[in-house]
Amino acid sequence: MKLDINCDMGEGFGRYRLREDVGILKWVTSANIACGFHAGDPHVICGLVEAALQQNVNVGAHPGYPDIQGFGRRSMNLSPKDVYELVLYQVAALNGITKALGGKLHHVKLHGALYNEAAERPELAEAVVQAVSDIDEELIIYALSGSALVHVCLEHGLRVAEEVFADRAYLPNGRLAPRDLEGSVLISKDEQLEQTRQLVLEQRVRTVDGGHIELVADTLCVHMDSPDIVPFLMELHRWAAQNAVLLEPFCGD
Amino acid sequence: MKLDINCDMGEGFGRYRLREDVGILKWVTSANIACGFHAGDPHVICGLVEAALQQNVNVGAHPGYPDIQGFGRRSMNLSPKDVYELVLYQVAALNGITKALGGKLHHVKLHGALYNEAAERPELAEAVVQAVSDIDEELIIYALSGSALVHVCLEHGLRVAEEVFADRAYLPNGRLAPRDLEGSVLISKDEQLEQTRQLVLEQRVRTVDGGHIELVADTLCVHMDSPDIVPFLMELHRWAAQNAVLLEPFCGD
Amino acid sequence: MKLDINCDMGEGFGRYRLREDVGILKWVTSANIACGFHAGDPHVICGLVEAALQQNVNVGAHPGYPDIQGFGRRSMNLSPKDVYELVLYQVAALNGITKALGGKLHHVKLHGALYNEAAERPELAEAVVQAVSDIDEELIIYALSGSALVHVCLEHGLRVAEEVFADRAYLPNGRLAPRDLEGSVLISKDEQLEQTRQLVLEQRVRTVDGGHIELVADTLCVHMDSPDIVPFLMELHRWAAQNAVLLEPFCGD
Amino acid sequence: MKLDINCDMGEGFGRYRLREDVGILKWVTSANIACGFHAGDPHVICGLVEAALQQNVNVGAHPGYPDIQGFGRRSMNLSPKDVYELVLYQVAALNGITKALGGKLHHVKLHGALYNEAAERPELAEAVVQAVSDIDEELIIYALSGSALVHVCLEHGLRVAEEVFADRAYLPNGRLAPRDLEGSVLISKDEQLEQTRQLVLEQRVRTVDGGHIELVADTLCVHMDSPDIVPFLMELHRWAAQNAVLLEPFCGD
Repeated sequence: MKLDINCDMGEGFGRYRLREDVGILKWVTSANIACGFHAGDPHVICGLVEAALQQNVNVGAHPGYPDIQGFGRRSMNLSPKDVYELVLYQVAALNGITKALGGKLHHVKLHGALYNEAAERPELAEAVVQAVSDIDEELIIYALSGSALVHVCLEHGLRVAEEVFADRAYLPNGRLAPRDLEGSVLISKDEQLEQTRQLVLEQRVRTVDGGHIELVADTLCVHMDSPDIVPFLMELHRWAAQNAVLLEPFCGD
Repeated sequence: MKLDINCDMGEGFGRYRLREDVGILKWVTSANIACGFHAGDPHVICGLVEAALQQNVNVGAHPGYPDIQGFGRRSMNLSPKDVYELVLYQVAALNGITKALGGKLHHVKLHGALYNEAAERPELAEAVVQAVSDIDEELIIYALSGSALVHVCLEHGLRVAEEVFADRAYLPNGRLAPRDLEGSVLISKDEQLEQTRQLVLEQRVRTVDGGHIELVADTLCVHMDSPDIVPFLMELHRWAAQNAVLLEPFCGD
Repeated sequence: MKLDINCDMGEGFGRYRLREDVGILKWVTSANIACGFHAGDPHVICGLVEAALQQNVNVGAHPGYPDIQGFGRRSMNLSPKDVYELVLYQVAALNGITKALGGKLHHVKLHGALYNEAAERPELAEAVVQAVSDIDEELIIYALSGSALVHVCLEHGLRVAEEVFADRAYLPNGRLAPRDLEGSVLISKDEQLEQTRQLVLEQRVRTVDGGHIELVADTLCVHMDSPDIVPFLMELHRWAAQNAVLLEPFCGD
Repeated sequence: MKLDINCDMGEGFGRYRLREDVGILKWVTSANIACGFHAGDPHVICGLVEAALQQNVNVGAHPGYPDIQGFGRRSMNLSPKDVYELVLYQVAALNGITKALGGKLHHVKLHGALYNEAAERPELAEAVVQAVSDIDEELIIYALSGSALVHVCLEHGLRVAEEVFADRAYLPNGRLAPRDLEGSVLISKDEQLEQTRQLVLEQRVRTVDGGHIELVADTLCVHMDSPDIVPFLMELHRWAAQNAVLLEPFCGD
């Protein structure tokens, strides 16, 4: 049994930082690095790519909508062509920087509103898959488990890691419960561990109505702004060791 | 005798355009495309890279300071490390986009205040050369003829095209006369042609004090906002044909 | 019979201009000046406020979403509180600048996606009306004729000018036909004049299904990017003179 | 004996915050609020203006260069006209917002590179004074003690508060020692208190060469990113009470 742990990182800009993220690198296997559109700038990106490469964490591009003030969380009604172009630009930048700094870009994970919209709308998912494979057909897309983006990747023969969440409640249709819904975010470390255990060992998850659905769980997303993120990650590593779950980067083989 | 003609392009943003630039492609051999920091956005960039590739014009990256409002013309007191990172990011983006669209990035020319500062300050020139060669050692840098950037390129074994200007007056030290100096911009088509003729055939130029200096002239920069740019380019092509000057991209051989 | 003619202006940024707008001032009675969020910057704003005051054109603030790349045309899912704050900021800026330059801010007209959304959604209209009246209760809001924003203004005792369009086709419900609908923009000068005539003299308009609806027409919006804008405005002035329609700023009395 | 304590605040943007600043309000008498150009946005500004008014802290505008990525610390070679326009815009915005929220703007303090440049260059100081007095002649400018900006304010009859620093070392010419100079920032709380005591009670300060210079000390700037800012402020209040120094806003009478 294998599990990849991914985390969104490099979300600073200029003097701003959301949090210190180098310290978290030792607990994850894949880093999704903001590309400068919703967050990130050349200084932040280069520093984090270097640190990730040093610690053998896989470097991923984390493209988003061009909206630093809104942190890429505001929908923007962009056309598939717009989405193709902005993903192409951002992935090209991260791909080139990672190569220049001695590594190789491993994956692409969309951010915020773009993540949600490409999970639902096949024409946007097509644009994303086209852009990513135009950069490098060996790149892996990290996509919401069971989403439209997963299907479009499979149709085009692009490797895809189906992503699940330790700290978010699920709707019966497999989507994440919206953040403004009561109970949509699992706060307690124990609840998060229990959900992770179920996702990884049983490939299913409890939904907000009390039922269960099946889900492929290739990669687990953790959030650095979770209150107990480091203790959670420590217990996750211990649990994985005890249950013969190998924590290693997704490779799609 | 050979001459490369280069032009700064793709300087739009969102709904804004400085000018229509696809029409000029047939008259130049190298296009320097703004990378999104002082001008340009993914839509503008992709459209122009595609058009340039279709017309067999060499695609170059044209990185600048991060300042759309000031069009990259305001000095920013950045450190060499800052300059390394912002050139790395921008060249990576253009390099990846050009490759994705079926071409190969040919050269890098700096923009505005960054162009001027890297021409004078060796430590910034070093940062630029490092960034460009970290992306691809085969890239050619277009640099002000005789400037510090030229010397740093040569020291590091990076190919460099020494650039001259048809429409700008020269100081006795080989620098361009500042734009706010009376007579610093040559308006008349005939003056521009005469200066070009002298630069290309004699590798020297008249300076503002009436003397002459020697200059290497590998590539000629033309500006789209020159009032008579198209008539000038038409006469330049005619003159080149009559004088056995081959108008073709610089390759450094 | 009176008619106000308003026009969106000052839509430049840095070196960029969408068009030369000082020349149009003599043909309109109200200028809606972009405030720096979707377009405009301090230099553009100050220049245009000064020119408008010199030509006795009423100065209005034209606030929009914070998105220069998207020109304020992309919806952003902002809350009423967000909208209150961004309208407050932008109107405060224009109000203070106009006063400093010797004039008095006359009206506020929303831009792009914000215009459309406040026309439909009463909670956003409330936020706008609150912000504008918190700045100055004598300000007049220019709002789509018959829209939610008109009703909210009236409820709060704020003066409102109901706005109609010379060059846009109308739906049977009084909304503008979306720009991507065939025939939604009236190109021909004669069609525009005929629609204006009907709107002003009969306070009604033909709709896309061939019927007619009644509309209050306090102010007519003209667009500088209409191909024949100056000839249209010249004919409009001639027609107004011949039909005893006074072209003067809306004052709500 | 009176002393005003001022602090730069509201330096967030979108999701970003440099620090929590509402808690500091009870320790200061004047808040300098970033206006959206180098930091700040409508949401951040409105929240902080409201909090300051509730706690009877004087609200000041804190305008800077248009450069969020560089936090307004990069010089930009702007003309006096540019500076006039950008100060006018920012002060107009804060002035209007403060009035709308039930208060009255009290002062203007420049930020970063603009602060330093207007302290040295009289033509920029003139532009600032013109912009501020065009908004409201009763506004007070907070300026580096003894600087060109102080003199220009006095010439134009604008009230000015001469500003001193608890935590910065002084050069013999009365300027602040540059941040990259060893010892330019006083870290220890005791050193800061000693410098404050000397500045307030003796109106003079020790300089880096061991000598002393005289300085007018109307207002003391404290920095929220000082490591011991709250303990320092607590001791400052205690010391002021013991020495009959009234901590109250500067009013210039």
